[in-house]
Amino acid sequence: MSSTWGNNIRLSIFGGSHTGAIGVVLDNLPPKEKIDLDAVRVQMARRAPGRDKTATTRLEADAPQILSGFLDGVTTGAPLAAIIENTNTRSKDYSDLKIHPRPGHADYTAAIRYQGANDIRGGGHFSGRLTACLVFAGAVCRQILARRGVTIGAHAYAVGGVADTPFDPVSVSAAELNALNTRFFAVRDAAAEAKMRAEIERARLAADSVGGVIECAAVGVPAGVGSPMFGGIENVFASILYGIPAVKGVEFGAGFGVAAMRGSENNDPFYYDADGTVRTRTNHAGGILGGITTGMPIVFRIAMKPTPSIGVEQQTVDLEAKRDAPLTIHGRHDPCIVPRAIPVAEACAAIALMDLLR
Amino acid sequence: MSSTWGNNIRLSIFGGSHTGAIGVVLDNLPPKEKIDLDAVRVQMARRAPGRDKTATTRLEADAPQILSGFLDGVTTGAPLAAIIENTNTRSKDYSDLKIHPRPGHADYTAAIRYQGANDIRGGGHFSGRLTACLVFAGAVCRQILARRGVTIGAHAYAVGGVADTPFDPVSVSAAELNALNTRFFAVRDAAAEAKMRAEIERARLAADSVGGVIECAAVGVPAGVGSPMFGGIENVFASILYGIPAVKGVEFGAGFGVAAMRGSENNDPFYYDADGTVRTRTNHAGGILGGITTGMPIVFRIAMKPTPSIGVEQQTVDLEAKRDAPLTIHGRHDPCIVPRAIPVAEACAAIALMDLLR
Amino acid sequence: MSSTWGNNIRLSIFGGSHTGAIGVVLDNLPPKEKIDLDAVRVQMARRAPGRDKTATTRLEADAPQILSGFLDGVTTGAPLAAIIENTNTRSKDYSDLKIHPRPGHADYTAAIRYQGANDIRGGGHFSGRLTACLVFAGAVCRQILARRGVTIGAHAYAVGGVADTPFDPVSVSAAELNALNTRFFAVRDAAAEAKMRAEIERARLAADSVGGVIECAAVGVPAGVGSPMFGGIENVFASILYGIPAVKGVEFGAGFGVAAMRGSENNDPFYYDADGTVRTRTNHAGGILGGITTGMPIVFRIAMKPTPSIGVEQQTVDLEAKRDAPLTIHGRHDPCIVPRAIPVAEACAAIALMDLLR
Amino acid sequence: MSSTWGNNIRLSIFGGSHTGAIGVVLDNLPPKEKIDLDAVRVQMARRAPGRDKTATTRLEADAPQILSGFLDGVTTGAPLAAIIENTNTRSKDYSDLKIHPRPGHADYTAAIRYQGANDIRGGGHFSGRLTACLVFAGAVCRQILARRGVTIGAHAYAVGGVADTPFDPVSVSAAELNALNTRFFAVRDAAAEAKMRAEIERARLAADSVGGVIECAAVGVPAGVGSPMFGGIENVFASILYGIPAVKGVEFGAGFGVAAMRGSENNDPFYYDADGTVRTRTNHAGGILGGITTGMPIVFRIAMKPTPSIGVEQQTVDLEAKRDAPLTIHGRHDPCIVPRAIPVAEACAAIALMDLLR
Repeated sequence: MSSTWGNNIRLSIFGGSHTGAIGVVLDNLPPKEKIDLDAVRVQMARRAPGRDKTATTRLEADAPQILSGFLDGVTTGAPLAAIIENTNTRSKDYSDLKIHPRPGHADYTAAIRYQGANDIRGGGHFSGRLTACLVFAGAVCRQILARRGVTIGAHAYAVGGVADTPFDPVSVSAAELNALNTRFFAVRDAAAEAKMRAEIERARLAADSVGGVIECAAVGVPAGVGSPMFGGIENVFASILYGIPAVKGVEFGAGFGVAAMRGSENNDPFYYDADGTVRTRTNHAGGILGGITTGMPIVFRIAMKPTPSIGVEQQTVDLEAKRDAPLTIHGRHDPCIVPRAIPVAEACAAIALMDLLR
Repeated sequence: MSSTWGNNIRLSIFGGSHTGAIGVVLDNLPPKEKIDLDAVRVQMARRAPGRDKTATTRLEADAPQILSGFLDGVTTGAPLAAIIENTNTRSKDYSDLKIHPRPGHADYTAAIRYQGANDIRGGGHFSGRLTACLVFAGAVCRQILARRGVTIGAHAYAVGGVADTPFDPVSVSAAELNALNTRFFAVRDAAAEAKMRAEIERARLAADSVGGVIECAAVGVPAGVGSPMFGGIENVFASILYGIPAVKGVEFGAGFGVAAMRGSENNDPFYYDADGTVRTRTNHAGGILGGITTGMPIVFRIAMKPTPSIGVEQQTVDLEAKRDAPLTIHGRHDPCIVPRAIPVAEACAAIALMDLLR
Repeated sequence: MSSTWGNNIRLSIFGGSHTGAIGVVLDNLPPKEKIDLDAVRVQMARRAPGRDKTATTRLEADAPQILSGFLDGVTTGAPLAAIIENTNTRSKDYSDLKIHPRPGHADYTAAIRYQGANDIRGGGHFSGRLTACLVFAGAVCRQILARRGVTIGAHAYAVGGVADTPFDPVSVSAAELNALNTRFFAVRDAAAEAKMRAEIERARLAADSVGGVIECAAVGVPAGVGSPMFGGIENVFASILYGIPAVKGVEFGAGFGVAAMRGSENNDPFYYDADGTVRTRTNHAGGILGGITTGMPIVFRIAMKPTPSIGVEQQTVDLEAKRDAPLTIHGRHDPCIVPRAIPVAEACAAIALMDLLR
Repeated sequence: MSSTWGNNIRLSIFGGSHTGAIGVVLDNLPPKEKIDLDAVRVQMARRAPGRDKTATTRLEADAPQILSGFLDGVTTGAPLAAIIENTNTRSKDYSDLKIHPRPGHADYTAAIRYQGANDIRGGGHFSGRLTACLVFAGAVCRQILARRGVTIGAHAYAVGGVADTPFDPVSVSAAELNALNTRFFAVRDAAAEAKMRAEIERARLAADSVGGVIECAAVGVPAGVGSPMFGGIENVFASILYGIPAVKGVEFGAGFGVAAMRGSENNDPFYYDADGTVRTRTNHAGGILGGITTGMPIVFRIAMKPTPSIGVEQQTVDLEAKRDAPLTIHGRHDPCIVPRAIPVAEACAAIALMDLLR
């Protein structure tokens, strides 16, 4: 199965870059939950292209049209469905991509998987555009979660070789996350943002692209959420986060950093805070022990590969002539997907938590 | 749900460290598949404790007893079920752990999640011992996969600060993997192994533990396996790999390394090899594009935190008296879980591929 | 979860009688399958209202608009999504239904389940209109199945006290089913049809409604499909058939008739036919033994309750005043749902078989 | 998938009539729930063979051995697993059944489905013996449900042509169900029981068998449980009830009787009872409207086919010689499965309600 997700809620995503529309269905949301559509649009706008030179100049309205599940300002409890029409699709001939698969893209693997019947226009169902559906769903879920005290925010942890200041996994607060989670290109350290923008601009001018890492935190999730083995927070989060195109790594808390640590360093000591709540002095666990939340902030990072669509000439194959062939990709592309992917990471966290807390 | 996994096959794991037995049910395996039980036992032995000073000195036979689904040397197609009795459980009083949760363990989170009713003896259902069930299931799956040309192997990529030579993701071969995948403490570079053992011994002598990274590869998986979005190889693999206790990160191909790469560097150029097969010159993708296999080796790494059970005094809380309290853990523990977890990583890869190829 | 279904394919249905649109997503269909949209429209028309006096006089175009998953006349392998706009919704005040739940309808149970936030206009997500989505999905699946030799057809087995001639479960043929499966009000015996129409007309004139039974058969399904226990043909079929509003019973083969039979009568003797195929002399099993197909026709029946919307005065409650209250329902209703539900039953069978054969 | 079931809880069943053991795993039960094992054994005994002449004379202890998930008298929240050893398996040669499939049994369909590798001894995984696992799981669930006010009971509604007095679907009470739900061969009308026993004895003396119908009711389920479309009470119940071997029909409330009814007759009028609770005057809906409970008793019936194992000579095929062949089955068989299946129906209802109320 490709495009459905969830256990307690059920997410179904459809559409391709150049189909009539893309869309999303969210089943088993709690009923009677107010949804502020303006707040949804804020999240959609954060992901939409055309904001500045860090992103593709394509302009897409990304205006979600709700078809069902929402009435008089609240969820009805029936499946919430929305579509986003594809309005800015340049009509051109995509048949060349069927012959010359783009390196780093799914053109080749999709052709094998779907016997050549896949819609290759604009990447089809593999397009990053589908993440608009995740952002819509996440924007709905995060409003419901907010009323339960949960706040989610993310920032560009790294772009190319430039690093932002990481979250303090112990003290990261709702206020801090709220200051980030409506921004475009959310970065904690303004100096880092300038350097990241310069790094992206260098890649853009070189007709190239650059990768990065997004760090996301969720605060306010009570202790005791999640399950051991395959029902853990990490399993559930990773299973949706890897649905974001370009993600090649997911880590929680100290993540790959645990490899070089001693147990005496990595173990987070428990203590009672002034309110009588059990907390940990450090939070290398990223708020998760045995797959279950500790009540401390949930912190994770995802590695985003550099956009595969680049202007420089690349080597590929000619699947018709069955020989090697050079390829130059034209068109409008993101020199770095990280800024636009930040709200997508937050959205996935919101959907995952909605599923776990439902 | 905690302990069931899979879509085309269904895995169900039960038991705790000190219950009557641990066990595993594997539903919808293909029928009429020969299973060599000696080969299964080889895998079980790789994970079993008591091998040398890198592991706990507890001795467990880990002899799986097949209850159903297997007759006359072949799978019957009905659920394959096996149990492993818990024979080496030292009877002692575990009630102290209910009061003083161990840092880095699930004692605290389980108590919240299960209202204090969880079985805390030996870690209960959170015990690393449950991975014996994964190894059993994986050992069955990998024999079936081997007849379809798929070979899986892993090694200790890092222990503490010591690194092994990584797999060459382009040329890693079945022969190379087969040389690793029956060994205890599989390392590619003998010099690295010696240094790793020294690192582990240092931790052990310090009554401490050390983390690491396991790298795993699967070769022979045809192109075109997997699906976009949530049905991708990465999603499916991560959803089972995070079921291994202590895993805090999962990455594929270049993984977190993609952050610092340009697209022109990360994109793997396609070419036709001498046999007329489409391959890639590099394999930063780890054999996966758009969630679907390219036909190149699948390569992933998992970060393992240092064993939380350490002998040095730690800070925790007294949940009864509701105050902070020191804790000293006694007993036999693994100073490094990496060596024993190598076959577990391979097993998860085998189970995931069995599900994807079923 | 309410509105998703399937294991190997995944069906997701959304919308309500008066929402912007109703729609359906079908994930994991095989790629490269030709779909004749005219044939789809034939099926949609069979279910659409306004055909004659046996049905409501509401007119709905029921024109499906495909949004994705279909290109150049074939399935792409990505989720197939379609919406049907709700064009003929009379604007009126539905608030009375929130206060006076209609007997036999879901008004009361939905109010409890969804805390009063449910969309009650036209029945909302509980409306029989949603079956248009099932018919669309089934019309796609049956075309794919037809190329694999599977033919499905159904007829009005009973309307009120009037019975049609049942299928011969041994000899029912593809030709016979094809003669039925494009008709409106499919009945095998013309005399029965006339009597059924008279029965429905009597109910209509009495401002009442009448129930019935639909019998459906599928031929060409090979032996060996399905699984024991919860993966049986019966389990899978029943789990989707009960998704048709008004179904209160599902039976296979001799069904409830087995109660009065001896084993010597009910057991279907095996024999070799002239082609060397194993068949059964009788087919009380309805083509299913142990949940698995025998290769004989699959035969099932569903009991449809009389449409609850009737014109005669009924007793209900006033949920605001908390007292009993009379209710008279106005508007256009089906005096018998059976004729329009015949293609829905076929569609469910097609979707179920697509899931089982995928 | 054959032998796993459930959404909010997850049931996994394994084993065959002659394997080492049969067993059951129940994941995601609520923690800290007391389970009285004597009460479990009472339910197991109701299903066990050898009670009297209505059943096979095989004696099986059916003593469940709990392996995990249960400690100090309560559920731990980890998967509850139990096995039942197969102790009374007569060693004999079953190879003849591979050649001469028994009419009405799964021998032939299993051979096709599992390429001949299926375990045919005693029916293997298709054996009615597997229902002991359902009874165990149900016995656990019903204790948890009882503390939430839910009571379940069933009776032999019909055996052959003999009918018991049906439940009054409006007034059936917990007291009435409790009087039935620990009995062997539960019948409401003592005179009917005598006639049923006579009917079974006639079949037994004729080396034949007879079918029947079981009626089951659940009271105390609050209004508002269940979901529209595929998440309805009917869908969920039917998907597990068809897991009982021999079930060929499932109906709710008036069931197939609705066919001959008018809407004015079938619709259940709402009213306020003396306590201010909304109830219905009749209960043709079987306690379910739109897939959701009304708060009235849930009532359903299942049709059980006559045991296919009978002593009289039957016609089958010789799969080796590829010709027709007579077959005479020897051994101990149930002349009527209805009495022993009554607790199985109740168990399925309990498991289904546990899933829906979790």
